[in-house]
Amino acid sequence: MGHGTNRVEDMASPNNGTTAPATANARETIVEIHSVCLPPKKTAFQKLKKRFGDVFFPDDPLERFRNQTWRNRVILCLQSLFPIFTWGSQYDLKLLRSDVVSGLTIASLAIPQGISYAKLANLPPIVGLYSSFVPPLIYSVLGSSKHLAVGPVSIASLVMGSMLSESVSPTQDSILYLKLAFTSTFFAGLFQASLGLLRLGFVIDFLSKPTLIGFTAGAAVIVSLQQLKGLLGIVHFTGKMQFIPVMSSVFSHRSEWSWETILMGLGFLAILLTTRHIIGHLPKGLNPPSSNMLYFSGTHLALAIKTGIITGILSLTEGIAVGRTFASLKNYQVNGNKEMMAIGFMNMAGSCTSCYVTTGSFSRSAVNYNAGAKTAVSNIVMASAVLVTLLFLMPLFYYTPNLILAAIILTAVIGLIDYQAAYKLWKVDKFDFFTCMCSFFGVLLVSVPLGLAIAVGVSVLKILLHVTRPNTLEFGNIQGTQIYQSVKRYREASRIPGFLILAVESPIYFANSTYLQERILRWTREEEARIKENNGSTLKCIILDMTAVSSIDTNGIEALFELRRRLEKQSLQLVLVNPVGSVMEKLHKSKIIESLGLSGLYLTVGEAVADLSSTWKAHGQP
Amino acid sequence: MGHGTNRVEDMASPNNGTTAPATANARETIVEIHSVCLPPKKTAFQKLKKRFGDVFFPDDPLERFRNQTWRNRVILCLQSLFPIFTWGSQYDLKLLRSDVVSGLTIASLAIPQGISYAKLANLPPIVGLYSSFVPPLIYSVLGSSKHLAVGPVSIASLVMGSMLSESVSPTQDSILYLKLAFTSTFFAGLFQASLGLLRLGFVIDFLSKPTLIGFTAGAAVIVSLQQLKGLLGIVHFTGKMQFIPVMSSVFSHRSEWSWETILMGLGFLAILLTTRHIIGHLPKGLNPPSSNMLYFSGTHLALAIKTGIITGILSLTEGIAVGRTFASLKNYQVNGNKEMMAIGFMNMAGSCTSCYVTTGSFSRSAVNYNAGAKTAVSNIVMASAVLVTLLFLMPLFYYTPNLILAAIILTAVIGLIDYQAAYKLWKVDKFDFFTCMCSFFGVLLVSVPLGLAIAVGVSVLKILLHVTRPNTLEFGNIQGTQIYQSVKRYREASRIPGFLILAVESPIYFANSTYLQERILRWTREEEARIKENNGSTLKCIILDMTAVSSIDTNGIEALFELRRRLEKQSLQLVLVNPVGSVMEKLHKSKIIESLGLSGLYLTVGEAVADLSSTWKAHGQP
Repeated sequence: MGHGTNRVEDMASPNNGTTAPATANARETIVEIHSVCLPPKKTAFQKLKKRFGDVFFPDDPLERFRNQTWRNRVILCLQSLFPIFTWGSQYDLKLLRSDVVSGLTIASLAIPQGISYAKLANLPPIVGLYSSFVPPLIYSVLGSSKHLAVGPVSIASLVMGSMLSESVSPTQDSILYLKLAFTSTFFAGLFQASLGLLRLGFVIDFLSKPTLIGFTAGAAVIVSLQQLKGLLGIVHFTGKMQFIPVMSSVFSHRSEWSWETILMGLGFLAILLTTRHIIGHLPKGLNPPSSNMLYFSGTHLALAIKTGIITGILSLTEGIAVGRTFASLKNYQVNGNKEMMAIGFMNMAGSCTSCYVTTGSFSRSAVNYNAGAKTAVSNIVMASAVLVTLLFLMPLFYYTPNLILAAIILTAVIGLIDYQAAYKLWKVDKFDFFTCMCSFFGVLLVSVPLGLAIAVGVSVLKILLHVTRPNTLEFGNIQGTQIYQSVKRYREASRIPGFLILAVESPIYFANSTYLQERILRWTREEEARIKENNGSTLKCIILDMTAVSSIDTNGIEALFELRRRLEKQSLQLVLVNPVGSVMEKLHKSKIIESLGLSGLYLTVGEAVADLSSTWKAHGQP
Repeated sequence: MGHGTNRVEDMASPNNGTTAPATANARETIVEIHSVCLPPKKTAFQKLKKRFGDVFFPDDPLERFRNQTWRNRVILCLQSLFPIFTWGSQYDLKLLRSDVVSGLTIASLAIPQGISYAKLANLPPIVGLYSSFVPPLIYSVLGSSKHLAVGPVSIASLVMGSMLSESVSPTQDSILYLKLAFTSTFFAGLFQASLGLLRLGFVIDFLSKPTLIGFTAGAAVIVSLQQLKGLLGIVHFTGKMQFIPVMSSVFSHRSEWSWETILMGLGFLAILLTTRHIIGHLPKGLNPPSSNMLYFSGTHLALAIKTGIITGILSLTEGIAVGRTFASLKNYQVNGNKEMMAIGFMNMAGSCTSCYVTTGSFSRSAVNYNAGAKTAVSNIVMASAVLVTLLFLMPLFYYTPNLILAAIILTAVIGLIDYQAAYKLWKVDKFDFFTCMCSFFGVLLVSVPLGLAIAVGVSVLKILLHVTRPNTLEFGNIQGTQIYQSVKRYREASRIPGFLILAVESPIYFANSTYLQERILRWTREEEARIKENNGSTLKCIILDMTAVSSIDTNGIEALFELRRRLEKQSLQLVLVNPVGSVMEKLHKSKIIESLGLSGLYLTVGEAVADLSSTWKAHGQP
């Protein structure tokens, strides 16, 4: 035993003149031990302040204001409220040229997309154009991304369409439907701006990528299914959006199936047939005010709020993800909370000017970026192009065939089903794939909000499950080093006679304290059985490596107390190694450190093994 | 630079003959590096099986059945279904003597407690006695604890009383009330047994101790408030249980305040006054069947189910905690899932024999233990004593004054307010204290089930918050060792020029991947500002110590990719140190390891620093 003793000491002495004299004098017997210290003392208020800052101000927004004159502070404050002041003063003709080119490019995309996405949301096509005019202008003043192209997007449009039309028919109650759409947009904006104002931006982190992949695919399938109505020529179609009612509606109205449509359908003939229809009347002129169409009472208010929150969070997730992507490509920062406020205000303003939910679109932002956009002026250029269209070119669009719209919708919708991403999830992380499937089938079979809730619930459950049943690993020493690693994973790692070294890979909380206590006792039983089988030397000490225990609560502390008591009954010593700052503090406050005694706490596993072995040797134990 | 190089090597060579020849030959220049290996290969099914086992079978219940003959397996199976077979064969007179003494002792406590707890639940006193007869008998056959004294308990009684009497008056609708109580008991048992059968025992872990302390105190205050009715002599008292309606009921019926009662009240005069009342008629005879009183339809079914689930989970928590406490004192195992089934079956049987919710009571079990109980036979003895009482001694109790009952109730209820425990929570863990207060005020001001739900929600939120905003620490080297620790906490730890060493203290999940990415980039900016201020040598490498990153998902992997890309743009290298098994596996599958290159992954921080420093030296960099 004690083969670790010399090494610890060797390691510490030759290169270090400041070693304690005791170690230098008696090199062969005394092991240098580093004590575990408490973190710097802080009052409860200081800790709360730090915690609060970490949660709500992780970006330290006031950092820039320190050590500045008052004049500078006012300028900085204006710049942070209206990012246009940051880049506006350096704006020149060269930048303008780039922005005009990219602005016109995205306008050519925004006009047909606006029209078709509005149809996806069961709204009059003109609303899509209105929505490509006011929100981009507002964003260009408030937003911090230079490349985000703002306007209606597919996911938010189809979610709004599917949620609202389940309760209100967009054809029979078109005015009510329009009112609901504007009201939802208002609540979406309010929700988004509040998240930003209250600095609750982390809420959108809970929509994980697997959730979004599954959700988008599910919503895309729902919209595709809705096309069955036109394809099969069914007149009495269900108003519901889920898979089962749609399919049963398709098959129960078999008598209504128009065989001619089906025969010609699926192929280009069906598509050609629809070209006979045209969009219909498109009024000339700018966005009419719509604040009188918002309503804050009545039977459908709850629906409007629900739709607003869901489309709000979805469009926020898309807008911020897109903004971050292009910011990181050009190496600038996009501030999440500020973006939320910008997107929120632009939607609230939009709801009063006949616009529905808008955000930064991925496809158009990519085109914008590639066309060489330099600042948010490209959004102003795009809005101007839409303005010209609204004022003078509307009659040209009168004859846009539904075929083109349908083609745009179908392309957009089918492109949303990202099966390759789902396959990659399956390969790398089965649980993420499961989340993705929950989200997909939840949306398809239950409903849009519930599907989303199920997927978020499953993601959160994964975190809880991980905390409830954490891993414990048995560590061994890698011969000739001070490294201790899992004996299962590293064949070089060998157990040290007399010790059972366990690493706990999770915080110790109420949710796992009982489990961990029982699991460690089971490890002890199993180790004793193994020793008995191999006639090894008796187990004397359990070392708990607490490096990965990032937090502990009172239940966890009690479990440690109880564990120590039960191990003591079996004449086993419990030793804690390297508790992190906050854990150490709580262990200290609860007096468990004192009850463990001097040889109950070490900084490294190596030091614990070396010191305890030499103590046992000194007492003549094997 | 490179002051770590020699040490790593020194550490590895002299004590270890198996060191690679290269190291032995060129001691001064080559650093011994241990590669990070993947965990042993497992199929997705094997991993799922292990995970499943960890969650549902952490106790490995089939362990005992391995390597046994079929005959032994049958016996073991019987023993595990009916623990009475385990100890029954070794039962002797000596054990019986102990059990009779303790059984009679707890019977003397169980009879008055049964009567008063039944009153607490607004049930006829005789039901309390019935409940002390059948359930203990069933538990003695099925239960695995040797010291648990089974019967009605205060918390479950007062929760049942407060929940049911909010909808149904126990005085005006006494039959319906009784039916609801039995039905709730049935559902409590069903819920408990299902948790055990489905091995979902970890559900009760979510009722943390702070939650229970607050909850119990809140419920106790509610019951005490209800005594105001009698104390003030108010006739038209509210049926509600919350603080505000009770208080407003007290003050709005001021005209009904009987000043005589108040004058005499609070003191012993009021108590003496109540002695005039007596319990009333107590029927002789055994438990009448009550299965005909259970009903599974009707308007109050939802209430009965809700009450059943809440009293079920509360009584389960108490019963299992008490069972575990005394088992650990005598060093035997109580199996959580089996206990749930035992308690569940005994309540289901109880609901058919005029009993209400029962479980192991802490106070009576403590008396049982101290009186020397050896096996569950003490429960049989107690039940027999109750049997004798029911058959012959009932008339004696006819004259038990309400005073005694009130005294027992008040003692029990006031004893439940554990302010000392709450103070300890405040001292050790402020957040646990907050949870406790949420639970207390939730129960007091909102309602019993919602108060409980709020407290559990707050506890879960704490876990999520911890995961959403994890700690990152800057590490430095403790001079003369291979130990790297937080520079904030250990003054001896000093930064190594050219490196920024960060430790992430949490799994990297969707919920924190964006935050961590931004936080690490902020660390980098702050470090570069610090270097600039002190004219230090340029930052070249970010080392991420992944020891405490116990898990990663696809969002986390993507964040690492993105982080590496962004650091590379700033000519900074990203190095990962010591990823745990499951993380390593996913990093490998997602090909991030390959993209990091040879010098992107190390087993220890020391090795990374030594190797990179020597590489830089070799390339002539400072």
